[in-house]
Amino acid sequence: MRHVAIVVTGLGRVGSAFARLLEEKEESCRIRYGLDLELRSIIGRSGGLYTPKRHGLHGLAALTRDEIAAHSAWNAGLTLPEALSILDPGVLVECTPTDLTTGEPGLGYMRAALHAGWNIAAASKGALVLRYQELFEHAAERHVQIRYSGATAAALPTLDTGLYALAGAEIQRIEGILTGTTNHILGRMEEGLAFEDALREAQAKGIAEPDPSLDIDGWDTLCKILLIANAAAGTSLELADIPRSGIRKVTKGDLDKARADGKSLKLLGRMVRQESGATAEVAVAAIEPTHPLYHVNGTNKGIVFFTDTMGQVAVSGGKSDPRGTAAALLKDIINIYR
Amino acid sequence: MRHVAIVVTGLGRVGSAFARLLEEKEESCRIRYGLDLELRSIIGRSGGLYTPKRHGLHGLAALTRDEIAAHSAWNAGLTLPEALSILDPGVLVECTPTDLTTGEPGLGYMRAALHAGWNIAAASKGALVLRYQELFEHAAERHVQIRYSGATAAALPTLDTGLYALAGAEIQRIEGILTGTTNHILGRMEEGLAFEDALREAQAKGIAEPDPSLDIDGWDTLCKILLIANAAAGTSLELADIPRSGIRKVTKGDLDKARADGKSLKLLGRMVRQESGATAEVAVAAIEPTHPLYHVNGTNKGIVFFTDTMGQVAVSGGKSDPRGTAAALLKDIINIYR
Repeated sequence: MRHVAIVVTGLGRVGSAFARLLEEKEESCRIRYGLDLELRSIIGRSGGLYTPKRHGLHGLAALTRDEIAAHSAWNAGLTLPEALSILDPGVLVECTPTDLTTGEPGLGYMRAALHAGWNIAAASKGALVLRYQELFEHAAERHVQIRYSGATAAALPTLDTGLYALAGAEIQRIEGILTGTTNHILGRMEEGLAFEDALREAQAKGIAEPDPSLDIDGWDTLCKILLIANAAAGTSLELADIPRSGIRKVTKGDLDKARADGKSLKLLGRMVRQESGATAEVAVAAIEPTHPLYHVNGTNKGIVFFTDTMGQVAVSGGKSDPRGTAAALLKDIINIYR
Repeated sequence: MRHVAIVVTGLGRVGSAFARLLEEKEESCRIRYGLDLELRSIIGRSGGLYTPKRHGLHGLAALTRDEIAAHSAWNAGLTLPEALSILDPGVLVECTPTDLTTGEPGLGYMRAALHAGWNIAAASKGALVLRYQELFEHAAERHVQIRYSGATAAALPTLDTGLYALAGAEIQRIEGILTGTTNHILGRMEEGLAFEDALREAQAKGIAEPDPSLDIDGWDTLCKILLIANAAAGTSLELADIPRSGIRKVTKGDLDKARADGKSLKLLGRMVRQESGATAEVAVAAIEPTHPLYHVNGTNKGIVFFTDTMGQVAVSGGKSDPRGTAAALLKDIINIYR
């Protein structure tokens, strides 16, 4: 049995779902993978939870923020480096919100974890997108791993397919419907709704965020195609390399034209490898019924890899909720120690 | 750089394609994976190729059987145990034809490889289906791995998805279109051809074998669902546990009824896990347009995993030719040493 300490940064919806899932899967991880995964600390902005007691943080995910701050394991002012210094290196589970300007607070947390020799399973995108090379070089120096299925469509296995299931093949092209929100809104627009109405409906249903820009304007898809391509196709794409347009400007005329041509409009993240190097873009495209992503509807996501030796491999589905993201984080932890 | 000796058993279409692919990918395996994979011996029924010279077997895959037997590296009567005893343990690449009665000659080859402490990447199914427990227990004793993507839909990543991309999740149900031949024939029958005509056409195109029974009668699908379920869902299914019907008895009436219901007929391998244990079956089923396998047409294959935490994940595509199978074998070798 291998004992692995887990520290979570960020206790929003994903962090809470992960803490809950870890308790639920504790026994099966021991039996199936020989892994004793224990949540030892949760770090937030103003302090953190830590207790030397085994399984002392059980049940915490069900608490409110106020209840957590009143918990006996709460240490006001506790920082991540302090928590890491008490424990044998394990895995940092990075669940803070994505910030594409500074990468913080995830960037600081990830640097601290690597410095202390911890592996990382990340659900946040900012730090990875902005400091990909730096973080991976740092991880290589410390002989630890950074995995980020949770940041690249989560329960839809994008990275595992590209890196593992297609090992040895050259990935020549990638196309993905990588944001469930925009796929849902485009679908509703195909059914006749105007963009603003479809967006408002999605917000009312909790599918779109109150500030929907990250999804609607293509940033979320951009982050994902960048991270997937860099990992699976060995590209060195950066944020500024990737032209990006979202779905705000899709008109009834665009939808009518696509329908008249027998096609469907999808917001795609795409990477193409050419003699001159790799290029990527995020844009709405009209795809044919024979395209493997044509039937990926609603909040579903999907990705297709075009390879030299294995043909084209398409993956679709995967739960698009905090529990699905938590499951992707857990999967990455298991595979780090496999 | 890690040096890995490769020995191939069986030099039919898959074995030849694998030898060719290995030469083609030699350099990229060194650069991307730090693996120096070298084909050191090829063993057939009446002898084998072996030479102590580095890269001495290059170019052999292009030769005919007669040219191989006349090659300076040909050793009449050379057996697998003899070849293995000369080399440091690496990977046996098992490419002999599938025999579901005896499992031979693959079974003998696999036992010899495990006995000598070699890993196995298998494209043949017989030995695995008939002696799954024995072979995996033997591998565990010797601390080596058996991988068999090449035997479970090859370039379609069935095992990697179930074992790796869904790690930590419970796989509650699996449904797969696992044989390209039968899917193609059913599609042609939906277009109006009688079974016998569709079969003859597929044989003429090289899609169906001269003896098509392994595919047509569901044996191929049965082997694959058994092997995928045992690996990914931890079942202990055996050949006799799985009711099987093929596509011979599909009538025009069945096709008309499915069409009238807006459904499509597919030969599915299915596994369902219930309180009382896991059950599996191979049968033609009428599936709805919303089913993730509905649009898997022609010689394409596809699989859906239904899980507790990640929702449903569907994979489709993957090249269905000897080169695709060779790529799956190479992938398994890379992942053994990852």
